[in-house]
Amino acid sequence: MATKTNSGRFFEDYAVGDVLNHPVPRTVKMGERALYHMLYPARHALHSSDQFAQSCGLPFSPLDDLVAFHVVFGKTVPDVSLNAVANLGYAEGRWLRSVWPGDTLRSVSEVIGVKQNSNGKTGVVYVRTTGMNQHDENVLEYVRWVMVRKRDADAPAPDPVVPDLAKVVAPTDLVVPDGLDFTNYDFALAGEPHRWGDYEIGEQIDHVDGVTIEEAEHMMATRLWQNTAKVHFDINARPDGSRLIYGGHVISMARALSFNGLANAQMIVGLNAGAHANPCLSGDTVYAWSEVLDKAETAAPGVGALRLRLVATKGHTPSDLRDEDGRYRSEVLLDLDYWALIPV
Amino acid sequence: MATKTNSGRFFEDYAVGDVLNHPVPRTVKMGERALYHMLYPARHALHSSDQFAQSCGLPFSPLDDLVAFHVVFGKTVPDVSLNAVANLGYAEGRWLRSVWPGDTLRSVSEVIGVKQNSNGKTGVVYVRTTGMNQHDENVLEYVRWVMVRKRDADAPAPDPVVPDLAKVVAPTDLVVPDGLDFTNYDFALAGEPHRWGDYEIGEQIDHVDGVTIEEAEHMMATRLWQNTAKVHFDINARPDGSRLIYGGHVISMARALSFNGLANAQMIVGLNAGAHANPCLSGDTVYAWSEVLDKAETAAPGVGALRLRLVATKGHTPSDLRDEDGRYRSEVLLDLDYWALIPV
Amino acid sequence: MATKTNSGRFFEDYAVGDVLNHPVPRTVKMGERALYHMLYPARHALHSSDQFAQSCGLPFSPLDDLVAFHVVFGKTVPDVSLNAVANLGYAEGRWLRSVWPGDTLRSVSEVIGVKQNSNGKTGVVYVRTTGMNQHDENVLEYVRWVMVRKRDADAPAPDPVVPDLAKVVAPTDLVVPDGLDFTNYDFALAGEPHRWGDYEIGEQIDHVDGVTIEEAEHMMATRLWQNTAKVHFDINARPDGSRLIYGGHVISMARALSFNGLANAQMIVGLNAGAHANPCLSGDTVYAWSEVLDKAETAAPGVGALRLRLVATKGHTPSDLRDEDGRYRSEVLLDLDYWALIPV
Repeated sequence: MATKTNSGRFFEDYAVGDVLNHPVPRTVKMGERALYHMLYPARHALHSSDQFAQSCGLPFSPLDDLVAFHVVFGKTVPDVSLNAVANLGYAEGRWLRSVWPGDTLRSVSEVIGVKQNSNGKTGVVYVRTTGMNQHDENVLEYVRWVMVRKRDADAPAPDPVVPDLAKVVAPTDLVVPDGLDFTNYDFALAGEPHRWGDYEIGEQIDHVDGVTIEEAEHMMATRLWQNTAKVHFDINARPDGSRLIYGGHVISMARALSFNGLANAQMIVGLNAGAHANPCLSGDTVYAWSEVLDKAETAAPGVGALRLRLVATKGHTPSDLRDEDGRYRSEVLLDLDYWALIPV
Repeated sequence: MATKTNSGRFFEDYAVGDVLNHPVPRTVKMGERALYHMLYPARHALHSSDQFAQSCGLPFSPLDDLVAFHVVFGKTVPDVSLNAVANLGYAEGRWLRSVWPGDTLRSVSEVIGVKQNSNGKTGVVYVRTTGMNQHDENVLEYVRWVMVRKRDADAPAPDPVVPDLAKVVAPTDLVVPDGLDFTNYDFALAGEPHRWGDYEIGEQIDHVDGVTIEEAEHMMATRLWQNTAKVHFDINARPDGSRLIYGGHVISMARALSFNGLANAQMIVGLNAGAHANPCLSGDTVYAWSEVLDKAETAAPGVGALRLRLVATKGHTPSDLRDEDGRYRSEVLLDLDYWALIPV
Repeated sequence: MATKTNSGRFFEDYAVGDVLNHPVPRTVKMGERALYHMLYPARHALHSSDQFAQSCGLPFSPLDDLVAFHVVFGKTVPDVSLNAVANLGYAEGRWLRSVWPGDTLRSVSEVIGVKQNSNGKTGVVYVRTTGMNQHDENVLEYVRWVMVRKRDADAPAPDPVVPDLAKVVAPTDLVVPDGLDFTNYDFALAGEPHRWGDYEIGEQIDHVDGVTIEEAEHMMATRLWQNTAKVHFDINARPDGSRLIYGGHVISMARALSFNGLANAQMIVGLNAGAHANPCLSGDTVYAWSEVLDKAETAAPGVGALRLRLVATKGHTPSDLRDEDGRYRSEVLLDLDYWALIPV
């Protein structure tokens, strides 16, 4: 058989400064909007009602911020993570512009770091990915790093380059969508009375509800974003025959569950850090809780920002997520650190 | 952990006259239309083809009448049935205006009855729910009653109020959508030749086909309507680990199956009564049959009304749905009584 | 119970020359577009990005060519294959006009052949099906033949009529969509550099990826096209309790997988032949490979045609698909022969 197909890149195929123009732009429309509500228990009013969005200064409901993330991320998979052993982390993520039905998204990644692991078989690749719309306007940027297999264990190690990444996106660097104005915010319609001033740093919120995940659902969600990594779809791809659930599916599920207690944290504007602590598999029941890590003001009328830790677990767990050796307990699926906008 | 979350209301939290403005309006668009066809074997021509709808006097295909029902119902769940033990009945339901892609729906319920049960642990709450669009026009109204747990068994029982509900919506109270005209109805395109005059009171129609239900499907359907009751999603929510299928999913499945024999019963305009006779679970195969309960004329050109009993069962059952003690046999899932519009 | 329902036609119910106007036209919109991306790993750029489609001379992305096929096919099921024992073959398929969101499709079939089998219990029915849009323009035509049960084994056999069908649609009969122009084709955006001249007759391409199929997915896909044959939905319809997966689901899955190696084979314009070699069931993992059978030029600027054999299998199989007796090996699900358009 010929070799016209893509089997993915290996560690040796990345060099700092490489620019990867990820193929196949994607137009997202009203259908993707409906599907997001079908796949996740998403209820934030700004993304549910055009009239609510208009009362907040927007022309109508933008697509969920995580739709932008998933589409932009999905484009990078064939070039970045098809042979990834693990998705290790995120940093310096910022949502720069809302995505509207009818927009066409594409992604570009720059390799900003490479470091071979001491075992000589794998290495870590750091990429800064930018998502753009059809007007070449940036809609999203973030750094992620992945562990990738070497094709040839004997290939020489490159000079290690580890980028200096911010632990947190500074509040002054957050971009509030054009026109967003929470001064006439309708808390009754949004579902909860809690505003920026009602949340205290250190406060934890258990989001109560849980969702048991099925194979059909996570595969459809992952495919929708044109993420085709075979570990999500093919029972022969992993030794134990399980299909690994795309980490972004857990992010969206946990974020949607966080409506119960954070109904007014309407928009995601920053991604500070994130770890997919353990694999999520079909049959797992995902719960979530949040912790308020920080608070900040913004220049937009009535708009504050909360820095939130969003934790997804299998089963309800204690807030101590790590064992005595500092490793995530096996029940922990996700430990995410993000900025959200909320009325003051 | 803080208590910013909603754990649902208990029986003591309802008083006759309370008005519950259910949060989070929802804009429904073309995507929801396509999803309805994906989730249910829906083939009624008026909801399938814009041109067919135009030949019936409408501007284009409205969303399925049950989409309005599910969205309006879903909004009420966090305030009405999060702690419900059982969804006991429906009455006085009327569809008042078509829902079009782009409409935004919200719901308001008034408590019209409360009655503590003799066991002292639960009570029945009656609510009249109204669904409205973005123009504050009513699109749907219905009464339902649910059995709800008491928070405190020692709390005093309220004075019982049981509303006097009509057994049947009077034909003269049915609202035919503006402009509906069946005088040029194309029976060949619609799929069956049977018109109003061809149905006799007492006639029963077995709808032949069955659908075996999967977890992923009913969860996606239920989520699509932003119905987040945990019994539908979380295997830890019920003692036996099963996920209870949203009763509305069975209604939509049975109604779609009824196309085979009632292809011309195009629109639902009244809901007289309904019982979710037994739980439906994943793996059940849903079949349906209908009985013609009554017939009525309407003032709209060429438009008649049939009062139909729609029964959904697990397996094909005899038409005697009840055992010697008058209880529904375990195979019966749904016993619904509704009015549909059909060409004369 | 009354007999207002359709139990499907039997072999005796078909006569050469019969014209079957299949009921229930269907308007397809943006939602169906999004669903196609959710149900299949579809990444061909022309169907993914409006701007890419525009760079190829089209007004925006048409719906996937197989959406037209599935909708047109689905309409024929109640009249043609409800009692079919097997879907035996396809021939002379041509896509005649793109389907755009908002189009309404309906189908008409003419019976062009009948031949009773020697067992006297079944017969083969040949139909030529045409799909039309709301302007009565033909969008698709194809011949298929199915084996259908006789209602009465003693009914006399009709005079056998077996149509003389072309083995291959002649390249000069292929219809290139109006305006299609690949002279400014962006191979980087499309995902692969391989053009018409890079493919050689006889070349085989293993498409690498596999997808394990779930019940919920194939049922939703099949329902979406209003294909209601009970063997796909009802565990009681087949003796072994399995739900047979609609053959078109396998076609779409294999075609989408073929992106990896045939990313530039953007549009399907001809269906020469096809066999559903073995049943596909939930739990099967579908892989695909292609063979270049022929190449042809077209009159459209920059547009060439490849005749491709698309094979779907359970597991990776050798290219020898048949056993010593000439029968398909049990791993083979699909053997399809089609024409696709690709930049020269």
